[in-house]
Amino acid sequence: MPRLTHVDDTGAARMVDVSAKPVTAREATAKGVVTCSPAVIELLRGAGVPKGDALAVARIAGIQAAKRTPDLIPLAHPIAVHGVQVDLEVLDEGVEITATVRTADRTGIEMEALTCVAVAALALVDMIKAVDKLAEIGRIRVVAKSGGRSGDWRRD
Amino acid sequence: MPRLTHVDDTGAARMVDVSAKPVTAREATAKGVVTCSPAVIELLRGAGVPKGDALAVARIAGIQAAKRTPDLIPLAHPIAVHGVQVDLEVLDEGVEITATVRTADRTGIEMEALTCVAVAALALVDMIKAVDKLAEIGRIRVVAKSGGRSGDWRRD
Amino acid sequence: MPRLTHVDDTGAARMVDVSAKPVTAREATAKGVVTCSPAVIELLRGAGVPKGDALAVARIAGIQAAKRTPDLIPLAHPIAVHGVQVDLEVLDEGVEITATVRTADRTGIEMEALTCVAVAALALVDMIKAVDKLAEIGRIRVVAKSGGRSGDWRRD
Amino acid sequence: MPRLTHVDDTGAARMVDVSAKPVTAREATAKGVVTCSPAVIELLRGAGVPKGDALAVARIAGIQAAKRTPDLIPLAHPIAVHGVQVDLEVLDEGVEITATVRTADRTGIEMEALTCVAVAALALVDMIKAVDKLAEIGRIRVVAKSGGRSGDWRRD
Amino acid sequence: MPRLTHVDDTGAARMVDVSAKPVTAREATAKGVVTCSPAVIELLRGAGVPKGDALAVARIAGIQAAKRTPDLIPLAHPIAVHGVQVDLEVLDEGVEITATVRTADRTGIEMEALTCVAVAALALVDMIKAVDKLAEIGRIRVVAKSGGRSGDWRRD
Amino acid sequence: MPRLTHVDDTGAARMVDVSAKPVTAREATAKGVVTCSPAVIELLRGAGVPKGDALAVARIAGIQAAKRTPDLIPLAHPIAVHGVQVDLEVLDEGVEITATVRTADRTGIEMEALTCVAVAALALVDMIKAVDKLAEIGRIRVVAKSGGRSGDWRRD
Repeated sequence: MPRLTHVDDTGAARMVDVSAKPVTAREATAKGVVTCSPAVIELLRGAGVPKGDALAVARIAGIQAAKRTPDLIPLAHPIAVHGVQVDLEVLDEGVEITATVRTADRTGIEMEALTCVAVAALALVDMIKAVDKLAEIGRIRVVAKSGGRSGDWRRD
Repeated sequence: MPRLTHVDDTGAARMVDVSAKPVTAREATAKGVVTCSPAVIELLRGAGVPKGDALAVARIAGIQAAKRTPDLIPLAHPIAVHGVQVDLEVLDEGVEITATVRTADRTGIEMEALTCVAVAALALVDMIKAVDKLAEIGRIRVVAKSGGRSGDWRRD
Repeated sequence: MPRLTHVDDTGAARMVDVSAKPVTAREATAKGVVTCSPAVIELLRGAGVPKGDALAVARIAGIQAAKRTPDLIPLAHPIAVHGVQVDLEVLDEGVEITATVRTADRTGIEMEALTCVAVAALALVDMIKAVDKLAEIGRIRVVAKSGGRSGDWRRD
Repeated sequence: MPRLTHVDDTGAARMVDVSAKPVTAREATAKGVVTCSPAVIELLRGAGVPKGDALAVARIAGIQAAKRTPDLIPLAHPIAVHGVQVDLEVLDEGVEITATVRTADRTGIEMEALTCVAVAALALVDMIKAVDKLAEIGRIRVVAKSGGRSGDWRRD
Repeated sequence: MPRLTHVDDTGAARMVDVSAKPVTAREATAKGVVTCSPAVIELLRGAGVPKGDALAVARIAGIQAAKRTPDLIPLAHPIAVHGVQVDLEVLDEGVEITATVRTADRTGIEMEALTCVAVAALALVDMIKAVDKLAEIGRIRVVAKSGGRSGDWRRD
Repeated sequence: MPRLTHVDDTGAARMVDVSAKPVTAREATAKGVVTCSPAVIELLRGAGVPKGDALAVARIAGIQAAKRTPDLIPLAHPIAVHGVQVDLEVLDEGVEITATVRTADRTGIEMEALTCVAVAALALVDMIKAVDKLAEIGRIRVVAKSGGRSGDWRRD
């Protein structure tokens, strides 16, 4: 039967020991979306108004958060993040965020990809909340990973 | 016409000056959900297996993230967080997270509530990802706020 | 009957709401001791060997940790630390650390004083551990506090 | 004659160069105790009152502090913490904290184990201080280490 | 005779107590320059090549560093930064950085302005160092301040 | 034609992937200077007044900042800093700061050396600004590096 790996037999939280695992190249991609109003979409497309650094702020917030994942997620292992790419695509009903994170380390990097997307989304909401109180963050999920013992995987 | 408040006329990111705003009591509540498999729900309900600290880890991660919001969100103001309550409700198809954050400060505390929910959700995914690769974070949104110039507001 | 204030009726951890408490001047003093070998004491007294920055490192680590208390202690409130004094006295069987911390804020500053002493002690152990494996940190406690609703208090 | 390794010949603090040391598996165990009143012990044993997340908060604070050791201890090297286990045993006159930390890195991990115990103890004091002003942290020490050039060691 | 305010009579570092000082509006402006090669200037002016987020990264790094000043500068007081504006002007022989920081707090905000400029400059160097090894940061200084007991001041 | 490596073809900021680069020993040395008044120089030389921890504070701030470089510089890679030496030389017209940083990692350590110098300089200015409003930080630059693909380099 499956069990929660981050708690021991008595239920106590712990950081699982990975010191014996080999260093291998790993990659994970996560996605998410910030749903917002047509007025915000127009602003982000820069229709006559300077959108300027708006998308850059979200991208940079995401990259920095990927590096800070072990500080945010209590039981996550410190991982040396070796590469981060964050793409923001302005669609008609929102902004889709895609983050790909790479490392050569002992454990998977999915949490870094998810944290990158979540914080980029939060930073975007921070910038648009004065214009759109109803902005909502959704569908944050891992879409692909490769490397490590469990091998390649892609969400259908 | 509405504009993005966090960029100036040339599009440059800035932290908006709030030093002249009065200190007032403010509160914000945000919600979100982690959708997961029946097997995870069973584990979180503790059916015969120690779930132990699992929900506590998510709660604590959320509380700490609320305090760290200005460090994560580039243009957010430092706010002295004066109270945080995080509730996790295990439903049939996922875990609903509700965070209420309070302060007496110069600017709104919605970002702290949203960050609290997002990081509690990430911490939960971290603990269940070995059992459920498809766990997904969704519907992160402000549901109510009070205090400040814009007054009370509740999402319908 | 007394109860743990940091957990609610269901046992869930929370940050207690202090937004309605008044801002008042507060001060707390904590003490602790690092017990170490005569050889270390001799080194710290600078007998013929440069002790240089050794005590300064511990002092500075303590001051910085006082500022970082809400980041280390999950349910502690962010407090604007307004003054910190750390004294290290080299005694015959160890080093006594005394920290006094001041603020004008809504809640007590004992945790900042204790954290200051604990981290100053850890930094000192870090510097002497190559010479004394048996160094031990002990007796970390609040010895006096003033200000706030509970008024002045001094440990007998 | 022994000397303080963290200061150079002029007494200036420095971070000792370990880049030429090999990566080896290392483990350290530290212990400490929080002495508290019978009333607190009763609360922590959950006699009729929800103790809930109280011990979990201390455990998680300790795990996170282990990861943050190089940020707290000025001359400590960044180490990739690969595993942390924190046990809290409620005894009659206090709570004994034991932390075991593992890594595969270039330098010892004792400071991480000590920091883990110290911050878990501080977090526990934070939760009980409203009930017991006299709570005291003591006996923080390394009890065992293995790996690295100096080999295995156990405190008698 | 003048003395160093951050060390006491015995020379020990301390954080000066400001808890009795009144909260007043304060502003400080600092400047600095990153000297770089004509090739870099051309890139930053976007001559046929996407410069994209380059200046935004420096601006955001500066804003975030202003908030993190008390974490970087050991004896600096925590200050609630209420507004930050960072301007980067691409000149013929380098990039001039100007930061204006505002607060309503108990002590001056010059260190926040200086830290903002210094870290924006470091972030810029990080992005251009592959093209210009000789990039140099210079002339970081306070150019104006207002508010607080010492009143308005402007560098000639 | 040279290009900015930290932005992609569309101008979006990214963290360049270094996971395939080999781990090699690397070293970088940076320098900078804090120009200050004769009165400050006299104080730092300790003429009749305790200068105490003043230079130690700057040294320690620099060492800690070197470790925190990836947290400050948005697109910098996390690097395990393996050794840091900071020297402060009190000259007639200012204080010259020299930092040498070492690692065994996948990418260069120049940014760590520069950040170390910049933050040591900021910490020094913090301590002398009450005595010398005109203190200025200048000439922060890499003076030598070795290791890595690009080999040894020394500024003329």
